[in-house]
Amino acid sequence: MSKTVTYTVRVEFGDCDPAGIVWFPNFFRWIDAASRHFFTANGVPRWAETADTLGVIGTPLVDTHTRFVATASYGDTLDIAVTVKEWRGSSFVQSYRVTRGDTLILECEEVRIFAGRREGGGIRAVPAPDEIRRLCE
Amino acid sequence: MSKTVTYTVRVEFGDCDPAGIVWFPNFFRWIDAASRHFFTANGVPRWAETADTLGVIGTPLVDTHTRFVATASYGDTLDIAVTVKEWRGSSFVQSYRVTRGDTLILECEEVRIFAGRREGGGIRAVPAPDEIRRLCE
Amino acid sequence: MSKTVTYTVRVEFGDCDPAGIVWFPNFFRWIDAASRHFFTANGVPRWAETADTLGVIGTPLVDTHTRFVATASYGDTLDIAVTVKEWRGSSFVQSYRVTRGDTLILECEEVRIFAGRREGGGIRAVPAPDEIRRLCE
Amino acid sequence: MSKTVTYTVRVEFGDCDPAGIVWFPNFFRWIDAASRHFFTANGVPRWAETADTLGVIGTPLVDTHTRFVATASYGDTLDIAVTVKEWRGSSFVQSYRVTRGDTLILECEEVRIFAGRREGGGIRAVPAPDEIRRLCE
Repeated sequence: MSKTVTYTVRVEFGDCDPAGIVWFPNFFRWIDAASRHFFTANGVPRWAETADTLGVIGTPLVDTHTRFVATASYGDTLDIAVTVKEWRGSSFVQSYRVTRGDTLILECEEVRIFAGRREGGGIRAVPAPDEIRRLCE
Repeated sequence: MSKTVTYTVRVEFGDCDPAGIVWFPNFFRWIDAASRHFFTANGVPRWAETADTLGVIGTPLVDTHTRFVATASYGDTLDIAVTVKEWRGSSFVQSYRVTRGDTLILECEEVRIFAGRREGGGIRAVPAPDEIRRLCE
Repeated sequence: MSKTVTYTVRVEFGDCDPAGIVWFPNFFRWIDAASRHFFTANGVPRWAETADTLGVIGTPLVDTHTRFVATASYGDTLDIAVTVKEWRGSSFVQSYRVTRGDTLILECEEVRIFAGRREGGGIRAVPAPDEIRRLCE
Repeated sequence: MSKTVTYTVRVEFGDCDPAGIVWFPNFFRWIDAASRHFFTANGVPRWAETADTLGVIGTPLVDTHTRFVATASYGDTLDIAVTVKEWRGSSFVQSYRVTRGDTLILECEEVRIFAGRREGGGIRAVPAPDEIRRLCE
């Protein structure tokens, strides 16, 4: 396990669909921001910097499993509690619990990789830098 | 099983992130559009109409499991093959295969419900209308 | 003139395009949120409520003129200062100044209307409710 | 003047807000895609390529004036007619007319620049390459 970091989101009118509830791809926008926030809150520099220093340009997603429990709407404030459940070579399991007060909105578990640039374009998985892992544990 | 319907997407510059690849929440925008396209291509009217006639205002997501296999970038054309793998009372399993030519980009399997309006706001699951199911099989 | 309200935004990785800078439609997402925040910060209830009490379902945009002065990137914190420069019957001029510290990022001036539902679907302009205007001045 | 190119958009459920109409920042997503489509349809290679060959990484927006005339909703098909009204050194005026059949939805006029990378990060304006201009006229 690692530290747990909370990322807070205000739900806006434009995040909601004609049914008046959050359109689900927007949850993934916030989860992606929360994923990165986890690293920056733990002291990992922005990817533009680690691209040069550690060869890591980001942590793209390879697998996500999300369970939606309750809806949210504009005016809501959501807390996203983020942690890394498992470190695996060049990948890791990151999990999210989104709540509005005591109400669980969704749970999400992802596999992400540490990505570097591949010669000729595109990306490739690189081993988790010790420095990043140490900051987050 | 049900019919399979293909929804085609052009990847645009703004769909891509600073790493130059599609930012993953955008895949969920397209998957959601493909989900609804599956119904309209099979003759199901828009939800604003079925809200009045069948009491269904949409098919919100309750669970999604997605496996990202290859990246995509702007200029790419993606085909999203959609089907319903299983009908279950008021929910159903919808699956997606996103490809660029012969290259598999991602696979996604969702559970969605048929939703109606709940008294006092919010939504509730309603049984799959026979008419909708018949059109899709 | 009216009160000035500031809405603060964190720029995230996914808000940026392959050039590494904020993709401009995202500025409009934030401006729209700031527009509504102006009203809620001044005590105007959410539109779902005013739809019933005042017949106003929102303030859709009819004209926007925006001048982009400097770029922004992820990790930036942006302040959006919002005011209403002019009230005109059923429309109003809302203006925005987006800054990062002392750096001006953009200036935007919009015309918006107060909208109610039209019989048979769609929306129509309605006179600015005195109550809303009084709260904002 | 230059050629006129049409870019076609399907409006999806998730493009619409709780009032059931297109949330306006989505129009800018489409306009940005239409802007680039204008160039690719006229034979200009993708920016990742022109970055190397012509030093142009994209055409960021510096000014936009948009007038919204009618609303649109999901199920609609919109045509965006794009042209370049004026070439000015390192900037140009690009205009858009968005229609649904005979109905005008919005008109937009933008100033954009040809951008190259600046030493040390960020972007700078570069003169319009003759080759790009010739392809578009």
